[in-house]
Amino acid sequence: MAPTQAQAQVETKDRRSRAPRRRQSEILEAAARVFHEKGYESTSIQDIADAVGILKGSLYYYITSKEDLLYEILQDVHQDALKNLDTISALEGTALQKIRAFCVVHFAHNAENLVKMGVFFKDFRSLSGERRKTIVEERDLYDNFLRDLIRQAQKEGSVCPDIDPKLAAITILGMLNWVYQWYRPGAGMSAIEIANEYGDFVVAGLACDPKAHKSGHRRMFAPLPAGLESFERNGAKPKRAGRAKKSR
Amino acid sequence: MAPTQAQAQVETKDRRSRAPRRRQSEILEAAARVFHEKGYESTSIQDIADAVGILKGSLYYYITSKEDLLYEILQDVHQDALKNLDTISALEGTALQKIRAFCVVHFAHNAENLVKMGVFFKDFRSLSGERRKTIVEERDLYDNFLRDLIRQAQKEGSVCPDIDPKLAAITILGMLNWVYQWYRPGAGMSAIEIANEYGDFVVAGLACDPKAHKSGHRRMFAPLPAGLESFERNGAKPKRAGRAKKSR
Repeated sequence: MAPTQAQAQVETKDRRSRAPRRRQSEILEAAARVFHEKGYESTSIQDIADAVGILKGSLYYYITSKEDLLYEILQDVHQDALKNLDTISALEGTALQKIRAFCVVHFAHNAENLVKMGVFFKDFRSLSGERRKTIVEERDLYDNFLRDLIRQAQKEGSVCPDIDPKLAAITILGMLNWVYQWYRPGAGMSAIEIANEYGDFVVAGLACDPKAHKSGHRRMFAPLPAGLESFERNGAKPKRAGRAKKSR
Repeated sequence: MAPTQAQAQVETKDRRSRAPRRRQSEILEAAARVFHEKGYESTSIQDIADAVGILKGSLYYYITSKEDLLYEILQDVHQDALKNLDTISALEGTALQKIRAFCVVHFAHNAENLVKMGVFFKDFRSLSGERRKTIVEERDLYDNFLRDLIRQAQKEGSVCPDIDPKLAAITILGMLNWVYQWYRPGAGMSAIEIANEYGDFVVAGLACDPKAHKSGHRRMFAPLPAGLESFERNGAKPKRAGRAKKSR
C-alpha cells in the first residue's frame, strides 16, 4: 500500500539517503521515457511503476509525487547543461570560436539526453510555482550566455552588427534544441559529426567581415524574389524604432 | 445525449454538409487551443465542448471523434503550407533566392498558426494508421522541397558544396519550426521582421563563393578552441564513408 502524500513528504527525504542511487537513477530514466511517450499530464504513477517493474507502493519509497520526478529529470539535465557553460567560459579563444564551441557542446548534450530534453521542452510548463520559476531562470541563464557571446563577438568585429543578439540566440537554440524531434542515435551521421555541421552553419550565418560590412547587406544578398513584396513589409504597421539598429 | 460512435460515423458526414462552416471552424480553433494547452492525450471531448461553449451532445453533431478533430487541425494547417510551396516554385529567381523565400514564407505561416503548429509538432504521433501516414507524407514532401532547393543551389554554385542538403534542411526547418515555443504576437519584432532576419541568417549560413571555396573551409573558420578535441572526433568510431562528400 502506498503511504498518503503527507506521510510520504515527511519520510521521503530520509528514505532517499538510504536508498540505492542506482535504483533512483533507474526510476528517473523510466519516468522520463514514459513522460516522453505518453506526455506528462497523461502519465500516472502506476505507469511509471510498471515501466520500472516495481509495485506502485514501492515507488513511493523513492518519490513523493509525479511532479517530484518531473522536477528531478529537468534539474538533472539542466545541471549538466550549466556545467557546459563553465567549460566554454574557461576556453581560450575569440567570442566567435566560443559560439562554435557552444553549438557543438550544446548539440552533443541534447543528443545524449534526447528523452530528458524532449520532456523538458514538452512538459516544463506543468511544473508549479517555485519549481517552474527555477527551471525558467536556469533556461534564461543559458540563453543569456549565448546572447552575451554574440554581443561580445559583435564588439570584436567578427559577427555582423546588423544581427539582433536576442533573436539570433533564439534562432540558434531552436535549431539545436529541435534535435529531440528527429535524431535517433545509430542512424546516419554521429552526434559529433552533426554537432560540427551545426557549428559550421552558425558561424557562417553570424560572421561578417567588418571591412566589407554595409548596413543591410545581408538583406540584399540573394534577395527575396519579385512577387513576395508583402513579405518585405509589415502590412499597415509603421516601421518599429528597433529597426534603427540596422544602421549601427 | 451524445449518439454512439457507430451512429455518429454514419451520420456526421451528411450533417456536416448542412452545418454552418463558421461553427465548424470555431470548433477546430477551440479544439486546437485545448490540445495545445492540455496536450491531446489529456483532452476530453467534454473539455472541447466547454471551450466552444456548447453541450457535449451538440459537439457530436459536428464530429465523430477526438482524432477527427486532430486530423482536421493538422490537415488544415498542412494544406496551407503545401500551397506555399506552389507559390515559391512559381517565383522567378535563383535557388538561393527561393531558399530565402521558403524561410520567410514558412516562418510567417508558422507565426500565423502558432497554436495549430504547436499541436502538430507535439501531437501528430497520436494519429493512428493511415492518417498518421498521410500527415508524415505531407511533411516529407515539405522537407524534400527545401532539400531539393539546397541541392539545386549547390549545382548553381551559390551554396557551399561541403553542406549535406538533408541535414541542412532539418537544421533550417528546426529553427523555423521552433517559433511555437517562444513567439507571442504583439511583443517585440513583428513576424515579418523576424521572418526576414531568419532569411538573412540562413542565406549567410549556406552560401559560399565557388572561387574562394576549399573543402572543409567552414570548419577552419573560427575553429573549435583547444580543449574540445573530444568534440572533433567521433570517439572510437571509424570515419564514415559519408565524410567523403567533404572532398567534392
